[in-house]
Amino acid sequence: MSDFEITKQNRVARLPDRGAYDKAAVYPIIDEALICHVGLVQDGQPVVIPTLHARQGDTLLLHGATTSRLLKYAQSGQPICATMTLIDGLVLARSVFHHSMNYRSVVLFGRGHLIEEADEKLRAMQTFTERLLPGRWDDARRPNEKEIKATSVVAIPIELASAKVRTGPPGDDEEDLALPVWSGVLPLKQQFLSPQNAPNLAGNIPLPQYVADYLNSRNG
Amino acid sequence: MSDFEITKQNRVARLPDRGAYDKAAVYPIIDEALICHVGLVQDGQPVVIPTLHARQGDTLLLHGATTSRLLKYAQSGQPICATMTLIDGLVLARSVFHHSMNYRSVVLFGRGHLIEEADEKLRAMQTFTERLLPGRWDDARRPNEKEIKATSVVAIPIELASAKVRTGPPGDDEEDLALPVWSGVLPLKQQFLSPQNAPNLAGNIPLPQYVADYLNSRNG
Repeated sequence: MSDFEITKQNRVARLPDRGAYDKAAVYPIIDEALICHVGLVQDGQPVVIPTLHARQGDTLLLHGATTSRLLKYAQSGQPICATMTLIDGLVLARSVFHHSMNYRSVVLFGRGHLIEEADEKLRAMQTFTERLLPGRWDDARRPNEKEIKATSVVAIPIELASAKVRTGPPGDDEEDLALPVWSGVLPLKQQFLSPQNAPNLAGNIPLPQYVADYLNSRNG
Repeated sequence: MSDFEITKQNRVARLPDRGAYDKAAVYPIIDEALICHVGLVQDGQPVVIPTLHARQGDTLLLHGATTSRLLKYAQSGQPICATMTLIDGLVLARSVFHHSMNYRSVVLFGRGHLIEEADEKLRAMQTFTERLLPGRWDDARRPNEKEIKATSVVAIPIELASAKVRTGPPGDDEEDLALPVWSGVLPLKQQFLSPQNAPNLAGNIPLPQYVADYLNSRNG
């Protein structure tokens, strides 16, 4: 299955077995990653900026201050690359050569445009908030006119994308298997630690249930 | 203090208070990050690739298969950008507008060249292995002639760099402080879970002490 066309641009050339081009492989990685790294070209020079993202169907959303360099570039319609990477573990082979990582990554390409229509912009901001923390939009104070004006939201229809995934144990060479070297995987996971109340939190506001649920689902 | 020149390229324009240009701020972030995202320009199009990195003094090292697109580009001497990002927490403000993340990131610029001299190349491979897991180089089987030949190591002297860091509680507006909305930080940390033996591990090889020490130091 391959929802995205496979071109020179998005083809997984190294270790092609690890590549996938279907939305079922690509979209869960985009959604699980909290941030992406966006590539732009400035005066012929590549620049890579980390930023929050959200996905709305086949569109990647970026947002930020209207004054931000990244947002100005992203809305210009110039080609953009956004990459999401989840690190799942260190892979310790018997041989130094076969050391690796378990990971899931997505590289995607598209061109962005500013979301200007008011309802669409507010919906995109809601998507951002809910994607970060489901339930938050209905609890927090929503953006006012001035805040909405100070925020740019850019939509990037995903034109090309590929996922690259490595899972499983080390891939040592046959002749190394008997070496007296410990070999295996050190699994890695982004875990939430105990929530920290804002120091100036009003009254005795408890941690909301939707936050506790989110922490459980992420740490589970 | 500012070890790196501050130019249009590396200046932290948005929220300049979060920016730093000294090695004491920049290098620990490079070293703690397990991977970086490297930006290149191909046919005018930005491409962002995740990869392992290591630092040797003022030089960033990348390595990979000699056939890799990234490594070929990196050794060409064309301008490269590498970005490391550590996510430290979700920042939940009372207002949607002031939601944020705590993070530490570095954006660096330079031009790479291939390390060809045999001793220097082996030393760089050792740096990579030891940076991933201190003690591993003396335990694992070291690369043989053929494996060394199949690996490219690229050195990128760090020409320009900047760090950008956000820490601390939400920055709500004064007039929102009394709102009945839970506010605070959800700290995030990349944690190691229990090690998984390779399924075909020889004999009764126990987890080495240096691995246990590493897991403790990273999780601690």
